[in-house]
Amino acid sequence: MTDALPVGATIGILGGGQLGRMLSVAASRLGLKCHVFDPAPDAPAAQVADAHTCAPYEDAEALAAFGAAVDVITYEFENIPTSALDALEALAPIYPNRRALATSQDRITEKDFLTDLGLAVAPYANVESAADMDAAVAKIGAPAILKTRRFGYDGKGQVRLKDASDASAAWADMADAPSVLEGFVDFSKEISIIAARNPAGDVACYDPGENVHKDGILATTTVPAAIPATLRMDAVLLAAKILNSLDYVGVMGVELFVTPAGLIVNEIAPRVHNSGHWTQNGCLVDQFEQHIRAVAGWPLGDGTRHSDVVMENLIGDDVLAVPEIARTAAAIHLYGKVEVKKGRKMGHVNRVTPA
Amino acid sequence: MTDALPVGATIGILGGGQLGRMLSVAASRLGLKCHVFDPAPDAPAAQVADAHTCAPYEDAEALAAFGAAVDVITYEFENIPTSALDALEALAPIYPNRRALATSQDRITEKDFLTDLGLAVAPYANVESAADMDAAVAKIGAPAILKTRRFGYDGKGQVRLKDASDASAAWADMADAPSVLEGFVDFSKEISIIAARNPAGDVACYDPGENVHKDGILATTTVPAAIPATLRMDAVLLAAKILNSLDYVGVMGVELFVTPAGLIVNEIAPRVHNSGHWTQNGCLVDQFEQHIRAVAGWPLGDGTRHSDVVMENLIGDDVLAVPEIARTAAAIHLYGKVEVKKGRKMGHVNRVTPA
Repeated sequence: MTDALPVGATIGILGGGQLGRMLSVAASRLGLKCHVFDPAPDAPAAQVADAHTCAPYEDAEALAAFGAAVDVITYEFENIPTSALDALEALAPIYPNRRALATSQDRITEKDFLTDLGLAVAPYANVESAADMDAAVAKIGAPAILKTRRFGYDGKGQVRLKDASDASAAWADMADAPSVLEGFVDFSKEISIIAARNPAGDVACYDPGENVHKDGILATTTVPAAIPATLRMDAVLLAAKILNSLDYVGVMGVELFVTPAGLIVNEIAPRVHNSGHWTQNGCLVDQFEQHIRAVAGWPLGDGTRHSDVVMENLIGDDVLAVPEIARTAAAIHLYGKVEVKKGRKMGHVNRVTPA
Repeated sequence: MTDALPVGATIGILGGGQLGRMLSVAASRLGLKCHVFDPAPDAPAAQVADAHTCAPYEDAEALAAFGAAVDVITYEFENIPTSALDALEALAPIYPNRRALATSQDRITEKDFLTDLGLAVAPYANVESAADMDAAVAKIGAPAILKTRRFGYDGKGQVRLKDASDASAAWADMADAPSVLEGFVDFSKEISIIAARNPAGDVACYDPGENVHKDGILATTTVPAAIPATLRMDAVLLAAKILNSLDYVGVMGVELFVTPAGLIVNEIAPRVHNSGHWTQNGCLVDQFEQHIRAVAGWPLGDGTRHSDVVMENLIGDDVLAVPEIARTAAAIHLYGKVEVKKGRKMGHVNRVTPA
């Protein structure tokens, strides 16, 4: 722990949403300050961080001042402009590293990387033209799903193809954005594993959780996932393989499909992950503190699951039920967002029973 | 929950030490903002609060602006100048109420109050002169302990009398500060109970913890306390009696001596309490969130103990062991204080085992 950040050091966080907010709170437990960079004046993390630079990611001057003010830089979302990272990387270490970020920013790069590691992914093909699209459908078949290679999240930038005749309309929907056609995977469950690695190369994984999505957005995560012990071990091993291969520092979320042929990697997220929110009430050290420990060069903490947890996202109007939920034995986590919007993640609830 | 504070509302906290810091973090989980008032520019809570008024408690203008900016006011320490409360009370509700604060600010008022409730306290006598001192020693005997009536904490403002001949030297030490002579209690254990009450009159108590002090400062709290179930129930009942009698809103720490004759109340603290820090890792809803829920008019949360915990304070140099502690299965809570001083509370550690 020679190079570990000491009490009073400052962690810079790119992005001030709920993930940045909960990272900032976790950092405070370790005596560390956070400085959030986010263009929104009312960014949720700004309410709990020591400092907030409110500027666009293209503001070179603001980036320079931010980089000079922090000891290490991390981020809460993948879609950080490359130019911002270029400006920052000379000023402070960036964790997770740029290779991890670049890999996860582009679905083709990500799938190529995972395939090269020997991991199973859904059948996929690159689509950058109408001709590519025809070739992709011929290769992958239908049903299938067309996704933008970059900047997609929570089901955005995706079109489903019921059969091959949907191909040209689907490609038209993408407005020429480089895309990937993915074959459908016949899965029984969606699970995810939250894994962490620090600069010393220590790796720690949380128990896999079982995810249910609704309208493309995570609705619930249940731990433990109802899967055999062998699959649980497979999930840990493949997560460790991914992290080690990227010389990764921080927490990563790895989404997996459970199929008769074993686990198929859906996608990786180089950051704390919504499906890891259960750790706040199920473990001594949660994913947010684990990420902070990793990027701060600390030993990883104890992520053993002490309780069974069902995490339920509060999306849009769901948050109106909080007065009722507050009367029950549940842990409430709200993000400080005043305006309720359809599809907006307003908070989450962890319901806990002893393991 | 009609009058419950909504997401985005602001809680004003008088005092920005570690208690204010952890209150602020807890408020963020409920989507509430905190505004801290503390004269110190580097107040630990300022690093995590949405706003910090850095001004003396005598600054009328700063108090007025603070009072206007917040929806409710609470505090993390007892010794708030009365003039500050006078200035604030017209601007926002103050919880716990002024009667609770006044009662706990003065050891004689507190003991009179507890005695009137029918609760047992150590023998005590008011001392405001050398003549009072002689009368007090004649009444209480020795050994005994002379304490200032106001502004004492962590063993400060206290002198022990081995026998009656120490009386005049002890009184001289007090420099004419109104004091109380307390008889020694022959106790087997020191315990404390953390209790909460909200405006609806709901009361919830955490399991009593067993405290060990060193040099007048809390060293460890262990839960569960090794006491019979009957005493545990006595502790809950007397805490509820105190809170109801004061029409109390918030969390209170009640320190108790375990004696052959039953529980004796040592003192009450109208705030979150160091001996309740174990709740952060032993319960779904900790004392900090419970206090925020109460002062915000929310239903109280689930404070059931899910684990056994030993809380260990990191005092002064103790904090230098954090790099080693970080390698163990322990939850670390640091307060963001950079300067290590003898006797200074730098953080605490919760070591947890399943209940």
